[in-house]
Amino acid sequence: MRATDPRAATSVVRVRAVVVTSPGGPEQLRVADVPDPVVGRGDLLLDVAAAGVNRADLLQRAGHYPPPPGAPVWPGLEASGVVVEVGDDVDDGWRVGDRAAVLLAGGGYATRVAVPAALALRLPPDADLPLVDAAALPEALATFWSNARAARLAPGETLLVHGGSGGVGTVAVQLARTLGVRVLATAGGPQRCAAVRALGADVVVDHRAGRVREDVLAATDGRGVDVVLDVLGAGALGENVRMLAEGGRLVVIGLQQGRRGELDLPALMSRRGSVLATTLRDRPAAQKAAIMAEVREQAWPAVLDGRVRPVVHERLPLERAADAHRLLEGGGVLGKLLLTT
Amino acid sequence: MRATDPRAATSVVRVRAVVVTSPGGPEQLRVADVPDPVVGRGDLLLDVAAAGVNRADLLQRAGHYPPPPGAPVWPGLEASGVVVEVGDDVDDGWRVGDRAAVLLAGGGYATRVAVPAALALRLPPDADLPLVDAAALPEALATFWSNARAARLAPGETLLVHGGSGGVGTVAVQLARTLGVRVLATAGGPQRCAAVRALGADVVVDHRAGRVREDVLAATDGRGVDVVLDVLGAGALGENVRMLAEGGRLVVIGLQQGRRGELDLPALMSRRGSVLATTLRDRPAAQKAAIMAEVREQAWPAVLDGRVRPVVHERLPLERAADAHRLLEGGGVLGKLLLTT
Repeated sequence: MRATDPRAATSVVRVRAVVVTSPGGPEQLRVADVPDPVVGRGDLLLDVAAAGVNRADLLQRAGHYPPPPGAPVWPGLEASGVVVEVGDDVDDGWRVGDRAAVLLAGGGYATRVAVPAALALRLPPDADLPLVDAAALPEALATFWSNARAARLAPGETLLVHGGSGGVGTVAVQLARTLGVRVLATAGGPQRCAAVRALGADVVVDHRAGRVREDVLAATDGRGVDVVLDVLGAGALGENVRMLAEGGRLVVIGLQQGRRGELDLPALMSRRGSVLATTLRDRPAAQKAAIMAEVREQAWPAVLDGRVRPVVHERLPLERAADAHRLLEGGGVLGKLLLTT
Repeated sequence: MRATDPRAATSVVRVRAVVVTSPGGPEQLRVADVPDPVVGRGDLLLDVAAAGVNRADLLQRAGHYPPPPGAPVWPGLEASGVVVEVGDDVDDGWRVGDRAAVLLAGGGYATRVAVPAALALRLPPDADLPLVDAAALPEALATFWSNARAARLAPGETLLVHGGSGGVGTVAVQLARTLGVRVLATAGGPQRCAAVRALGADVVVDHRAGRVREDVLAATDGRGVDVVLDVLGAGALGENVRMLAEGGRLVVIGLQQGRRGELDLPALMSRRGSVLATTLRDRPAAQKAAIMAEVREQAWPAVLDGRVRPVVHERLPLERAADAHRLLEGGGVLGKLLLTT
């Protein structure tokens, strides 16, 4: 059965998207008309309210991170919006008019997106959360949740979040707290450190002081941390291993400081430690659906009851996508940038 | 209650051990009289039949791998022998005259050792296994078992064992087969490859051909392996990561090809892979006891029913410890070298 909004059924709706004219800098981003998304079996069609801006979008714009097969070629890994069409075989009671935040393989920088309902989180009418701001959450929730699970992060353990003031970090700090985990985080400068502390981090280390490892060890009585969630990559590999407690797990989810780094095997051995590395976007649809099913059941309730709030640095219209990319590349963003339609 | 063999109660028993006169080459090994081991609570005292020779002993002899506090200063991580005294608070029905194979933190190159009963495996009177040869097993069983568990190796998965003809490798190949795992192994030269195949490996790759990765990928339809058990370390890190299947785990337990290697994080990310590194000797006593409890329950039965057999390259008297070290350093050993008393 397919439910269709009469407005959506007309083909006169123009869909606009921020496209990359050719690989390069932010100036390559342009708003253009694009084809209406195809609503497949199991899909929802959304009128987009806002799209989240992620670092992966910067790589994609520069030509280094092509979208997986079948995804729109324009960027955008998450969005929020209103359901305007429900495809065949959609379970879980989705209806036209419902509000949702969705995880995407691409294509979020647009006025419309089609997305598997399995990747959608429902925002009830009474939710104390603006629809626009909900776009800041799906990627960070899925990233934190899937990696906490891969690392078998357990209540009572200690977690270090690198980039605690970032798009993933601000969500990771809050969500980890709901799991009964002791949270340490890094951030740059007193203002962002204070903001991360306000999100509930037990300890915040200003990485500009250049003593991250010393401070983390001091805050853990020399023991180190059980899990490091790292967005830095190669440049931080050595220090990260040396901050691990016995049996500690380093989870690399970003490469901001490089792709290849030296691994000190005896240092890892003496801790019986491990290094995991993951990505989210390129996983098969079934895996993403499984991750989002867990997010829906175990993390989304903490959003709806206010324990986890999106941290939005700025909301800019789609037309200013280039400015959003410049801001993120500049490094001064606290939380997430959103593009509104 | 303490049971004592009248022969053991006298202090006239001379205990001899192979000691390292000063850090250096095999010529530094000498047989000398050493103090009688102290039998603590929970300990067994053994008249040693044989001790296994491990690569870690070579490092210790050279001064690079000091024994942990409380362990004898002379080498030897495993032994077999006959119980001559049972300390207080020993459970599990150990009696004088029982035969055992034991895991040690050091001190196996001797005519007597004291060892926690929690680290001992009992060899029943009817076992179809020479007591001397049982000395080849504890270290390899505990190493394979603890690392298979750390890597969550599961039935139906594929395992690559580097050094399939070595002391750990010969046991790992046989034991993995009993777990319903598909076993690939590397070895050097046609003779050792044939020997590893005879142990039950499904695929053996001659590493002298220089095409290990290509052969492993070909044998797995390009998929790679779920777990790599690696004794090579830094020199093989890059190739090992590139042989991992999606979700694959590389477990580094040796450093024969170096300590620090370049880790290609995008290669690990694209596989959602992980690198673990462990040692056995330096773990707390309680962890070793837990490992050996699992070995006793889940691996030792496969030894007693003949599915896992020790592979012994040569049995040499304690006095020829230097020759044993030279042989192991020479690289031509198949299975394990034993020192007999």
